[in-house]
Amino acid sequence: MRLAIDKARQGIKNGQTPFGVCISKDEEVVSCVHNIVWENMDITAHAEIHAIREACKKLNTVDLSGCVIYSTCEPCPMCFSACHWAKISTIVYGTQIEDARKLGFSELTIPNEKMKQLGGSPIEIIGNILYAECLELFRFWSAQGSKKIY
Amino acid sequence: MRLAIDKARQGIKNGQTPFGVCISKDEEVVSCVHNIVWENMDITAHAEIHAIREACKKLNTVDLSGCVIYSTCEPCPMCFSACHWAKISTIVYGTQIEDARKLGFSELTIPNEKMKQLGGSPIEIIGNILYAECLELFRFWSAQGSKKIY
Repeated sequence: MRLAIDKARQGIKNGQTPFGVCISKDEEVVSCVHNIVWENMDITAHAEIHAIREACKKLNTVDLSGCVIYSTCEPCPMCFSACHWAKISTIVYGTQIEDARKLGFSELTIPNEKMKQLGGSPIEIIGNILYAECLELFRFWSAQGSKKIY
Repeated sequence: MRLAIDKARQGIKNGQTPFGVCISKDEEVVSCVHNIVWENMDITAHAEIHAIREACKKLNTVDLSGCVIYSTCEPCPMCFSACHWAKISTIVYGTQIEDARKLGFSELTIPNEKMKQLGGSPIEIIGNILYAECLELFRFWSAQGSKKIY
């Protein structure tokens, strides 16, 4: 999670939104990225989607079974569903979707646990890890003059 | 929708899964693609995500307000959420998520209407358009020897 936080901080400095993600398998980092929606002008390029794409490419598979995804913020329903499709075993997150919504992002505020229950996903979910440090990213981002929401 | 169906058929012939999407704005086609999960080895490369990425690139914006997305199958929760993020105005679909699940795809079977209601999305949803033709795509795909699910 600390690597994901570092990536998010790097993204903020580059004008991106305050979200970082790290995917690991067998204790090794597979991908570690930040959100690049503005960099790529691609609304789907959330940190989780970007990290999953990188991981698929690196491992040459669409099946990320056994992988853990660390996200500085609870994955939105798009990203939660991408984790499910990728068969990621565990989601570990810091802040909550509701925290991101308060920044002005047009979040679908459906918690991961609700998505899991409704969809019958086997994915394990562990929230509120390094919450304070992850929330600090939002403060750091908010202090930037050029912050842009979507 | 007929363009999306043609794209899906083309994708099936190329070894891809049976899903096609067309995005239009002001009666003009902005992007028209099929699913490329296997082609790109990218589990997030569903037809809708692919089409939204193309549309963002073409229009140089992450805001697809006023666009209509035509999908041969009801967008999965990942793709529905991507449509919401992109501020797409209307989703028009053919078959249902449940129909795709029956083919063996590991769908999170949460209908678009449920996602809209839970997330409070303003997106308009119109289902069951050219249902028979869209369902026929699944039969055509099932008849291929090399069909691969995920």
